[in-house]
Amino acid sequence: MSVEAFDTVDVIAAKRDGRALSKEQIDWVIDAYTRGAVAEEQMAALAMAIFINDMAPVEIAHWTQAMIDSGERMDFSSLSRPTSDKHSTGGVGDKITLPLAPLVAVFDVAVPQLSGRGLGHTGGTLDKLESIPGWQAGLSNEAIVDQLEDVGAVICAAGSGLAPADKKLYALRDITSTVDCIPLIASSIMSKKIAEGTSGLVLDVKVGSGAFMKDLAKARTLAQTMVELGKSAGVNTSALLTDMSTPLGLTVGNALEVRESVEVLAGGGPADVVDLTVALAEEMLRLAGKTDVDVRAALADGRAMDKWKQMIRAQHGDPDASLPVAEHTEVVTATDSGVLTKLDALSVGVASWRLGAGRARKEDPVQDVAGIELHAKPGDTVTAGQPLMTLHTATPERFERAIEALESAVEIGGDAASVPESIVFDTIT
Amino acid sequence: MSVEAFDTVDVIAAKRDGRALSKEQIDWVIDAYTRGAVAEEQMAALAMAIFINDMAPVEIAHWTQAMIDSGERMDFSSLSRPTSDKHSTGGVGDKITLPLAPLVAVFDVAVPQLSGRGLGHTGGTLDKLESIPGWQAGLSNEAIVDQLEDVGAVICAAGSGLAPADKKLYALRDITSTVDCIPLIASSIMSKKIAEGTSGLVLDVKVGSGAFMKDLAKARTLAQTMVELGKSAGVNTSALLTDMSTPLGLTVGNALEVRESVEVLAGGGPADVVDLTVALAEEMLRLAGKTDVDVRAALADGRAMDKWKQMIRAQHGDPDASLPVAEHTEVVTATDSGVLTKLDALSVGVASWRLGAGRARKEDPVQDVAGIELHAKPGDTVTAGQPLMTLHTATPERFERAIEALESAVEIGGDAASVPESIVFDTIT
Repeated sequence: MSVEAFDTVDVIAAKRDGRALSKEQIDWVIDAYTRGAVAEEQMAALAMAIFINDMAPVEIAHWTQAMIDSGERMDFSSLSRPTSDKHSTGGVGDKITLPLAPLVAVFDVAVPQLSGRGLGHTGGTLDKLESIPGWQAGLSNEAIVDQLEDVGAVICAAGSGLAPADKKLYALRDITSTVDCIPLIASSIMSKKIAEGTSGLVLDVKVGSGAFMKDLAKARTLAQTMVELGKSAGVNTSALLTDMSTPLGLTVGNALEVRESVEVLAGGGPADVVDLTVALAEEMLRLAGKTDVDVRAALADGRAMDKWKQMIRAQHGDPDASLPVAEHTEVVTATDSGVLTKLDALSVGVASWRLGAGRARKEDPVQDVAGIELHAKPGDTVTAGQPLMTLHTATPERFERAIEALESAVEIGGDAASVPESIVFDTIT
Repeated sequence: MSVEAFDTVDVIAAKRDGRALSKEQIDWVIDAYTRGAVAEEQMAALAMAIFINDMAPVEIAHWTQAMIDSGERMDFSSLSRPTSDKHSTGGVGDKITLPLAPLVAVFDVAVPQLSGRGLGHTGGTLDKLESIPGWQAGLSNEAIVDQLEDVGAVICAAGSGLAPADKKLYALRDITSTVDCIPLIASSIMSKKIAEGTSGLVLDVKVGSGAFMKDLAKARTLAQTMVELGKSAGVNTSALLTDMSTPLGLTVGNALEVRESVEVLAGGGPADVVDLTVALAEEMLRLAGKTDVDVRAALADGRAMDKWKQMIRAQHGDPDASLPVAEHTEVVTATDSGVLTKLDALSVGVASWRLGAGRARKEDPVQDVAGIELHAKPGDTVTAGQPLMTLHTATPERFERAIEALESAVEIGGDAASVPESIVFDTIT
């Protein structure tokens, strides 16, 4: 990349005054920031100016491309099959990646799922898989390609060489109140996913209390922005807008969510998890040119489970080993009788986090066993005194603050019309 | 100061979203920034949010007070006479402080003029005085009070204990494109001046190409904001809006400006310098309750010159010593005949800076001898070939770039109505 030098204060001033940044300015500022020639405080000022004054679609595309260009880009063109990937904006109980990756691989589409760890109230896919005895998250780029060829699916840690500018900017945004900004969210997600080298990408954009986007209109704008970014970078991209007002499935927490994922792979599992897994699999396969496929059959007849076991074994995990179980549990019961009309995703996510399933800082450990089992979901009729949830932890002193987080999580006998009928609200292609 | 703790990201987010900051939030964030608990990148994001979303007058007042409270405050209440001070927003050839401080002191009003060094195209008062053999800028707080009692006027370096939050913020704003923002400019100036402990303050707000404020409306807003800040902190404050479209007087540069200041103190000197010195002196004296005074007489009869000599000697300077003179000069002549209608302040300031009179970085040295003598001013009739300016420097390789800066500085035969009739545009009390 050959770029002329700009004066950092001029680039900041342009966005401050509401002007569009040129491709050359963006290339320069992202490259200089990655090298350390643009200081953190300068990028903070620029990020705030972007937050308040926005970026046009063409600026977001240049910004995303510059972040991709700040690091290495993976190349799966040598594979004998097409690649298709999924990214979720993050939710409570969102274990979908676990059954989804092997399910798609059944149909000869490779799934390179480079994932992260959880921070805050949403769990991380790697944290969940690490509750399987022996399983290892770290793979070399060569091992990723080999596993995609041999097994067809890989879920592993994203290498530090992908979009390093995004890594720096992500940490900076966190402390400077510049997180909740569509141009910066969209370019952050898409720079990583595009650098990962997939040819198809389905975005699962969550909407609701447990999601980053609380309302449908904003989620739709984010989804459309990301779909455009993907397409303009040559990645076949679409998005599903899906419900995150209540947790996905009946479990939240690392080992608990693996257990539920295995139930789905065995042909069972909660309807919402199955429905979303199937919807996402169909969309991923469609992007790879496969439309005439019976995805549910692969869950029912054991083919997806076989792929799962191969995938776990390839990363030194034992898919038949028992999962760890919490020593301490506590049951939360219904205080009234009637239809359960609210089981708030954010509250349950925070409670699970406080039980030990998540981390407050990057370096914190997580408990495999901590989390929450749900015994009822919105739309179900419950009776006063019946168990609503079971809280799990290795450290019982955590129960008190977890229960505090659940204080206004539950509503019985409220507006039944507020319970969504389908988990998928819309598809954006 | 007792303040409760806030979350920095919440304070930034409030201003980002256009909300007003409370006194408690402002006290907390300025104190935490001074202590280093709010990081530079966080203050950069907040400064950008303030730049774009503005602050209400009450927020600016709290911000100013918090910056004052970040350091020490001088106290001149023990003096036997009132204090009155002047602050200029900075201009080209602005040597007014030099004749003004002793002139006001003649009338038994003490002038505590704590000054800075120049950066960029406007010179610094201390740099000018340091061209006087022996003169020393640094004084202890006790020495300042003693000199105010004995002589009645002191021009010296501001101590580092005054408004340390402002010092940090000033350096940060410079690299984050958050300089040109009235709330931040006004609070920066006023926090230092109020901390200096004067009871009266006249602001000389410059307007025009050589000034920070290029247009009258914005300069007026800045002046009104600062006058309100001063009054709300108990300082009797007023402001003059004055012309900075062309340099003040006939000299720009350190020793050259001292020479011209001494001419004014001897009862001579260019009319614009004399007029502005007298206008500011009358206003400073009015704020100290002295309205029936003949200021011009004190210039004509030598009383102001006597005070000047006392003031310079008190700081180990020799007021009778010869000032240093440049070894190298170069004359710029008129290319046409007619009325000189433009002699651009910014161009002359930059040329003088490039000759060695100013510095690009804080640690750079300045030349005492470098600068520019003007032989004509806007409104004068000139003849093609007649000398317009003489450039002075110790390092003749600097002439080329200085002359480049003057390329479009001069206009002959343009619109004569564009030449201001008076140096003072307005007074804001």
